[in-house]
Amino acid sequence: MNTTEQELDSVLEAASAAHRPLAGLRPAVRAELLRRIADALDSAAGELVPLAMRETRLPEARLTGELGRTTFQLRLFADVLVDGGYLEATIDSPEPTWPAGGRPDLRRMLVPLGPVVVFGASNFPFAFSVAGGDTAAALAAGCPVVLKAHPGHLELSDRTGKIVTAALGAGGAPDGAFAVVYGEDAGRAAVLDRRIRAGAFTGSLHGGRALFDLACSRAEPIPFYAEMGSVNPVFVTEAAVRARATELVEGYLGSYTLGAGQFCTKPGLLFVPASAAEDLERRLVAAVAERAAAPLLNERIAGGYASTLRTLTEHPAVRVLRAGEDTADGPSSTLLGTTAADFVERCDELLTECFGPASIVVRCASDVEMLAAARTFTGELTATVHGEPGDELAGALLAELAERAGRLIWNGWPTGVAVTHAMQHGGPYPATTAPTHTSVGTTSIRRFLRPVCYQNAPRHVLPEALRDGNPLGIPRRVDGTLVAGA
Amino acid sequence: MNTTEQELDSVLEAASAAHRPLAGLRPAVRAELLRRIADALDSAAGELVPLAMRETRLPEARLTGELGRTTFQLRLFADVLVDGGYLEATIDSPEPTWPAGGRPDLRRMLVPLGPVVVFGASNFPFAFSVAGGDTAAALAAGCPVVLKAHPGHLELSDRTGKIVTAALGAGGAPDGAFAVVYGEDAGRAAVLDRRIRAGAFTGSLHGGRALFDLACSRAEPIPFYAEMGSVNPVFVTEAAVRARATELVEGYLGSYTLGAGQFCTKPGLLFVPASAAEDLERRLVAAVAERAAAPLLNERIAGGYASTLRTLTEHPAVRVLRAGEDTADGPSSTLLGTTAADFVERCDELLTECFGPASIVVRCASDVEMLAAARTFTGELTATVHGEPGDELAGALLAELAERAGRLIWNGWPTGVAVTHAMQHGGPYPATTAPTHTSVGTTSIRRFLRPVCYQNAPRHVLPEALRDGNPLGIPRRVDGTLVAGA
Repeated sequence: MNTTEQELDSVLEAASAAHRPLAGLRPAVRAELLRRIADALDSAAGELVPLAMRETRLPEARLTGELGRTTFQLRLFADVLVDGGYLEATIDSPEPTWPAGGRPDLRRMLVPLGPVVVFGASNFPFAFSVAGGDTAAALAAGCPVVLKAHPGHLELSDRTGKIVTAALGAGGAPDGAFAVVYGEDAGRAAVLDRRIRAGAFTGSLHGGRALFDLACSRAEPIPFYAEMGSVNPVFVTEAAVRARATELVEGYLGSYTLGAGQFCTKPGLLFVPASAAEDLERRLVAAVAERAAAPLLNERIAGGYASTLRTLTEHPAVRVLRAGEDTADGPSSTLLGTTAADFVERCDELLTECFGPASIVVRCASDVEMLAAARTFTGELTATVHGEPGDELAGALLAELAERAGRLIWNGWPTGVAVTHAMQHGGPYPATTAPTHTSVGTTSIRRFLRPVCYQNAPRHVLPEALRDGNPLGIPRRVDGTLVAGA
Repeated sequence: MNTTEQELDSVLEAASAAHRPLAGLRPAVRAELLRRIADALDSAAGELVPLAMRETRLPEARLTGELGRTTFQLRLFADVLVDGGYLEATIDSPEPTWPAGGRPDLRRMLVPLGPVVVFGASNFPFAFSVAGGDTAAALAAGCPVVLKAHPGHLELSDRTGKIVTAALGAGGAPDGAFAVVYGEDAGRAAVLDRRIRAGAFTGSLHGGRALFDLACSRAEPIPFYAEMGSVNPVFVTEAAVRARATELVEGYLGSYTLGAGQFCTKPGLLFVPASAAEDLERRLVAAVAERAAAPLLNERIAGGYASTLRTLTEHPAVRVLRAGEDTADGPSSTLLGTTAADFVERCDELLTECFGPASIVVRCASDVEMLAAARTFTGELTATVHGEPGDELAGALLAELAERAGRLIWNGWPTGVAVTHAMQHGGPYPATTAPTHTSVGTTSIRRFLRPVCYQNAPRHVLPEALRDGNPLGIPRRVDGTLVAGA
């Protein structure tokens, strides 16, 4: 099923040819394309969800919800296009007295980068795969998408791809605006091909870094946006334990075992005050025992989980609080323990994402130790603090963690990433290769846009977004002041 | 004078320590710091300009103007900080019915990346050097700056650096917010140091690419924004020649010989219709002969110019229309010629930046040839089209060039880059390593910012920019709608 070199060349040639026509469509027309894709996917739910269940072993309710999230995301990007603010249209009028030589008529907007290669993820067969967030953002921006299917759900990728292509075609999109390719070789070749102008990836640190390195190694390097997962530390203060220990135990357990721990926002480390640790650990172990085991996505994921878990379990600084078992339904959840002193000293070994239902409780002997542990992180998708009003430690933790994570959660849990305007799903390396961007939320479109400025251009050669009279009715910044759209 | 390893370590440690205090200052307070720097530089003009004249051989009027541009730039960024829109503060209210699981309270803003290393340029000893655009943007963002001085103006760098440091200190900035380092080793070591979180560079393709590769090679890669110059093609249609040949000759000559051709926006290629070529070439040669020679910045630049010019001159597809001479005042201007057919076939050899007073006239036998020539470009800071109303070729050229350049100039010249909101100074590789950004204009601040999102955070742990009631009075996006600031 792997895409051959020749097939890939045809796909890239078609994507390249589709770039100008797709970019040339009015934003409102591209919005209609996204809505058509969403409608077509919703209509095919009865076919797609069972297919996804079979290929990913994920349960029906979860997959139905994920498909809903996927089509909502496409429709939200349609709204972004209609609003038009994403174009960042900016107009500076001629001003001869402007310092340093006067100001000509300057008009700037964002335009699509060109064809993008997107790598589907294993753990979200809909929302971060063929028609997922990266595809939605790139198509919304006006970039043709070459989608490299994840081997964990090939048949679903093929079906989803056909539905997307058909919906685009029916809506008048140029041929080549979207295609699915198969196989690691095709993925790597696409990243290296000069017709590809950006890449997006969701998956492991190992895979993401390798593709990022390829993208940077090109004669003409391109932006490569890899989201590579995270450990997502959770910090709990003494005040929080005193106020709501039961809620903390249940919430943490629910978050780290959700979807069998196969989320990039799964909390992998729980930092607790030593004074409360024994009690919390006992309660967690009791509650873990009652959780049902769930299958992992596929053999590759299961093998990686077993291997990482073994390394952690055998680490001299780690105690096993509750060992998960291999059941017919999959691995049951594991809970490990260590101390903040050991963690800080050996964070190179312990600060590693264990993709599956395992987590580590870290006993902190003091506030100072907990803060020192917070400082070991360099780049996380999320960091969570549980504190109470007037809780100084909680504030200090948040301040440290704001330097290190993309999203800071207060008295909540990191799993569950809402698709909104303000969402940030990203962070400094190793969470991503692009700390200045997000891969979820409406601003993720910016990854696929670059600015172009027209100087003294007359009306007939200006894009509509920049013309006098604002024919598109979009928000624009005129002489430094934001002016609302129609 | 080179910075030792130990000295660099102290500088980086101080920059790292300064990050949180600098980032923690209110934007309006950082604005005051930028204004203090601007005031101090303006006050020192009587000392700085003569120093710059001696080190760079640039004339007084040019340097006085450039210093004015530099301090204007600092003050414009101060205005950006006071406005606050650059923070992109975005608030989504809790909405339980939001699709795919409900929406928590999400509040997103941009925060500084951390210490930045900035490489000063040779050809703008003020505006793209110690206190230049990159420094202004990074300090405005709240990032400490480690400035690697260009060897072409070391004494000026030292003096400017001392003035910047003193102004920051007087304004209450944390120690370590700014420092100048010297020597290529120190520059490379800074790019590789984990305390540095981003880099910015203006200079040659060779130098920029080498530093970009270093930045990407790190265990924790960082964004590296290199602006690496450009050939800046100019296209002239037959209609434009008919309408204003004299103006075209004078304008082109003025632009390519300005500052002895030592601008990254110098037009290096003039594409003209073959029908008008002989006349235009004759007029250009006559006008070139009347231009006074001017010294190049330094021996290194002069050597590079002589070498590149020799390669071009000896190229079999190139005719010498007017050979410049080495005079006591520097090289006089050179004009070369070729054909579009040769150019398209051998653009790998001919499409090269020749930093100095030389340019190539390219004869295009047809509109098709001119369009084919436009398609050879992959990444330019600017592209210019001279056309007339109803000129279809001009429109087609602009459409091609919009894919390939950051700024499109209509009936004008690329030299002269206004510092405004709508300016774009960047472009696809090889113009820069970051096609999604600009290094001039107010949006250049975004290079040094990353998004952080707070989920369900109470007032006392939220940054002021995100609190209810908008205490900073800044523009914010609330539930998808832009709300103006106070």
